[in-house]
Amino acid sequence: MTLLSELSTPCALVDTQRMQANIDRMQQRMNALGVRFRPHVKTAKCVPVAEAQIAAGAQGVTVSTLKEAEQFFAAGIKDILYAVGMVATKLPQVHALLQRGCNLKIITDSVAAAREIGRYGSEHGVKFEVWIEIDTDGHRSGIKPEEDTLLEVAHALRDTGMALGGVLTHAGSSYDYDTHEALLEISEQERAGAVRAAQRLREAGLDCPEVSIGSTPTALTAEHLDGVTEVRAGVYVFFDLVMHNVGVCTTDEIALSVLTTVIGHQEEKGWAIVDAGWMAMSRDRGTQKQKQDFGYGQVCTEDGRPLEGYIISAANQEHGILSRSGEPDTGIAERFPIGTRLRILPNHACATGAQFPEYQAVLPDGSTATWPRFYGW
Amino acid sequence: MTLLSELSTPCALVDTQRMQANIDRMQQRMNALGVRFRPHVKTAKCVPVAEAQIAAGAQGVTVSTLKEAEQFFAAGIKDILYAVGMVATKLPQVHALLQRGCNLKIITDSVAAAREIGRYGSEHGVKFEVWIEIDTDGHRSGIKPEEDTLLEVAHALRDTGMALGGVLTHAGSSYDYDTHEALLEISEQERAGAVRAAQRLREAGLDCPEVSIGSTPTALTAEHLDGVTEVRAGVYVFFDLVMHNVGVCTTDEIALSVLTTVIGHQEEKGWAIVDAGWMAMSRDRGTQKQKQDFGYGQVCTEDGRPLEGYIISAANQEHGILSRSGEPDTGIAERFPIGTRLRILPNHACATGAQFPEYQAVLPDGSTATWPRFYGW
Repeated sequence: MTLLSELSTPCALVDTQRMQANIDRMQQRMNALGVRFRPHVKTAKCVPVAEAQIAAGAQGVTVSTLKEAEQFFAAGIKDILYAVGMVATKLPQVHALLQRGCNLKIITDSVAAAREIGRYGSEHGVKFEVWIEIDTDGHRSGIKPEEDTLLEVAHALRDTGMALGGVLTHAGSSYDYDTHEALLEISEQERAGAVRAAQRLREAGLDCPEVSIGSTPTALTAEHLDGVTEVRAGVYVFFDLVMHNVGVCTTDEIALSVLTTVIGHQEEKGWAIVDAGWMAMSRDRGTQKQKQDFGYGQVCTEDGRPLEGYIISAANQEHGILSRSGEPDTGIAERFPIGTRLRILPNHACATGAQFPEYQAVLPDGSTATWPRFYGW
Repeated sequence: MTLLSELSTPCALVDTQRMQANIDRMQQRMNALGVRFRPHVKTAKCVPVAEAQIAAGAQGVTVSTLKEAEQFFAAGIKDILYAVGMVATKLPQVHALLQRGCNLKIITDSVAAAREIGRYGSEHGVKFEVWIEIDTDGHRSGIKPEEDTLLEVAHALRDTGMALGGVLTHAGSSYDYDTHEALLEISEQERAGAVRAAQRLREAGLDCPEVSIGSTPTALTAEHLDGVTEVRAGVYVFFDLVMHNVGVCTTDEIALSVLTTVIGHQEEKGWAIVDAGWMAMSRDRGTQKQKQDFGYGQVCTEDGRPLEGYIISAANQEHGILSRSGEPDTGIAERFPIGTRLRILPNHACATGAQFPEYQAVLPDGSTATWPRFYGW
């Protein structure tokens, strides 16, 4: 049994009690709203985390890479949505997963890609289940609900014998807001846009069984999800400082942190140097333009209590510069002597987790367990 | 034999001809300046890259983590400098490496850490070789050349029987400049500061065999290195857009790129969507405050020709938004149809490489070879 105090630094800690509370909170919301929940497992890329989500009631998962599909299918999860636009070169890998029994759904938002999918499917005698990506907030990919392209894509799929599984959208711009009113508005826009797209398809006599929406902020804000069949969200499982600034979690709910050690000081500048630089925290500066800029992360005691005003203000590859916001703390060497261990809450859990080959899960009894995670494509 | 055109995307390409030219350029400079060269292998974390550096004349390596020390020692490299301040909890791992025959040197910049090293060394009968970190530009760690602490640290080491191997400094602030004059000034400041620290130690009757300095910009700028025994530099092996903006390489010398595929468009906005998001490019926005902001990277054709003005202007986890600087290119869907393959030059090679489990080395005959790289601590 390895204790927290025995872990070498830097390492990525998962507070399993917080994680479980985050999982339960989201699942209970989805149950109350009457929709299925399909978590986005790109945040953790970790089988024990996905298993906890499924144990709580999640049905299927969402992935951002085909490697995630391979890995989670190998772990026994069959119902998988690959939520990045399909291109022809990736179809053989999808095909192979289908042949092995994976219920993998793919997405598209263009006639050109739909035709490629249909062509491959026809040539190889495979009926891909394809969902159409809808753009409900202009932040990235997708077809606007009222665009002609929506029906053109659906027809291109039908004409080649593919299965139209549904529509999906992701209001990624919800990350840009920080009031309940604004989040409520973007949530309703996300819901209404996806439902409208499905309605247009159905009015044209096309199948559209699924209406899938979601992002952590909208999933935690929506007051009703009429017409929606499933919700996707990812970062809620750990939360992070960006989500804190958006207003959907407190710092006490953030389940991921980086354990670090103080390795030096520049006292006159009020700096402590820690062994978590940007390689550990990631280069994500997601709070830079938000209402509170946490630099590269919020400093906490080793047992997780936030130290108000102390942040990682700058970072090199393996050096973090810990300082107090505002007035320099020239007593920093006494406050955090060399060898002091601290936890750092990250800006963005998806980016920080990705820097580590494994998580150290901190269990309720204070012991730790190593949870492997994977990366790459 | 895998051809470039057969690689799945996103993947990290290393142009081996460019890499070899970068290695040769640096080694020839170091030879002409009359110093040993100890490359910082944190950039690539890849054995074939380090082997190419050593074949060209490098003597020993610099590492940023003890995992790098373990991995490169396992690959047969014995002379290793771990250039991050030592703390007590990491000494057992260093000790184990020494016992296995690794000539591992450690560093410190404080009396407290020096005493911990001495205490461990005395208790375990091991004479650590310790170098003292000097601060020549105020950007991070180290003792200023004229500080009393310098002699106090040296005495703390001597009094406990440790070996004072030398002094080292790193002018990390050289990344902030972009004129030859400014780089020349910071190079001389780096050299003079390290030499002055060594002089003070020697005048006090202490050993100081090595005077180690370096950063890619200063190593490529310095006109003489009198008093210096060795130079360290890392990112020069691949170069990147940050180094281009600093003025020490051209885009034609950047050896690392990310191969990506166009997966969609938002034509009216002039966007192509590619499958290299920030997970592939890293979150590093190092060119943001430089003279030319490349977003998340410079777009090139599949064979590596830069497409002036086209950059990855925004990124989500697995989506990059490719657009033209200035006026939107509403003909972008015709210019870059779905399925088009492109190379993206990164802002920061150390950060981008770290996102990939392996490099795809592009060999002179057009074939590719997989070069594994490692990560984590």
